[in-house]
Amino acid sequence: MKKGLDEKTLPLILQSEVVAQSRLFRIETLQLKFSNGEEREYERLRGNRKGNGAVMMVPMLDDETFILVREYAAGTHDYQLGFPKGLIDEGETPEEAADRELKEEIGMGCKEISSLKSLTMAPGYFRSSMHILLAKSLYPEKLEGDEPEPLDIVPWSVHNIDELLEREDFTEARSVAALFLARKYFK
Amino acid sequence: MKKGLDEKTLPLILQSEVVAQSRLFRIETLQLKFSNGEEREYERLRGNRKGNGAVMMVPMLDDETFILVREYAAGTHDYQLGFPKGLIDEGETPEEAADRELKEEIGMGCKEISSLKSLTMAPGYFRSSMHILLAKSLYPEKLEGDEPEPLDIVPWSVHNIDELLEREDFTEARSVAALFLARKYFK
Repeated sequence: MKKGLDEKTLPLILQSEVVAQSRLFRIETLQLKFSNGEEREYERLRGNRKGNGAVMMVPMLDDETFILVREYAAGTHDYQLGFPKGLIDEGETPEEAADRELKEEIGMGCKEISSLKSLTMAPGYFRSSMHILLAKSLYPEKLEGDEPEPLDIVPWSVHNIDELLEREDFTEARSVAALFLARKYFK
Repeated sequence: MKKGLDEKTLPLILQSEVVAQSRLFRIETLQLKFSNGEEREYERLRGNRKGNGAVMMVPMLDDETFILVREYAAGTHDYQLGFPKGLIDEGETPEEAADRELKEEIGMGCKEISSLKSLTMAPGYFRSSMHILLAKSLYPEKLEGDEPEPLDIVPWSVHNIDELLEREDFTEARSVAALFLARKYFK
């Protein structure tokens, strides 16, 4: 059933070089030698900000309702529905970052928080990973965020998940995956 | 239940500029003016190759078994489990690309293919989207791919999904999401 899951020998990084960078990103080339002798050039992307990681929260208003936000996405130049998320600040745990981001983005803190999984985006190119957390026992508390405009707050019933998956503005792989990871906690 | 899903006014792109690029990627800055008057600078990433999009396939060996591949991921510098995927070539439909990639990556073609959803990676930064497809009625047929080493082919039972989600080498958000989207077709 799980053939091929023996130990693998990582390719050797013969050389790496930063070939381009901006305020937020850094592009590196890697000269790689695989264990079979093949040599290839790969590219990978890194964030330029200090890498404390990121969090995404599935906030449960009650056992049958989670909260989505809708915000502008520059990559696709449209408004996208998804779970609240943000970067972990220096010195914060993922749980602390999750609580702060919830206060900033949906105006609620949470008394219970648990980790569901860490997800990568496109591990072929990016190192960054995101902690997916389930947030329960919400209570009102607002912190000022740095958003250019307030996010739309969109409560959604766990009974309407298929309808959500069909929406053309709910496309982010990490939000779809978070929904899957949280499903066992839905009533 | 779905408050706040009124029409949104997109921010105005006052200016955009390519600030860095490499063989594969291009980083742009955007000067944005939001409908409330707020102005901000955003960055976004584009692929430098012609953008025909990408495909990821959930290949069903039978109703109770899907196929994963394990390959080197440069971003995280480790071996990752995930569904087979690849870029759509010029002139190909997503279905044709899916069939070709399956022949290259797992040595099988498919007689039935259906679209599950298109996913974005991080729409805040990237435009690129990936078609997620379910591939059935597989048959042996091998095409040469451009991989530096053969991929490990890993059949996995639909009854062991929780075990898969717990693995530290199964982290890619798009693969986790694909599993969720395909689950209704599992026996």
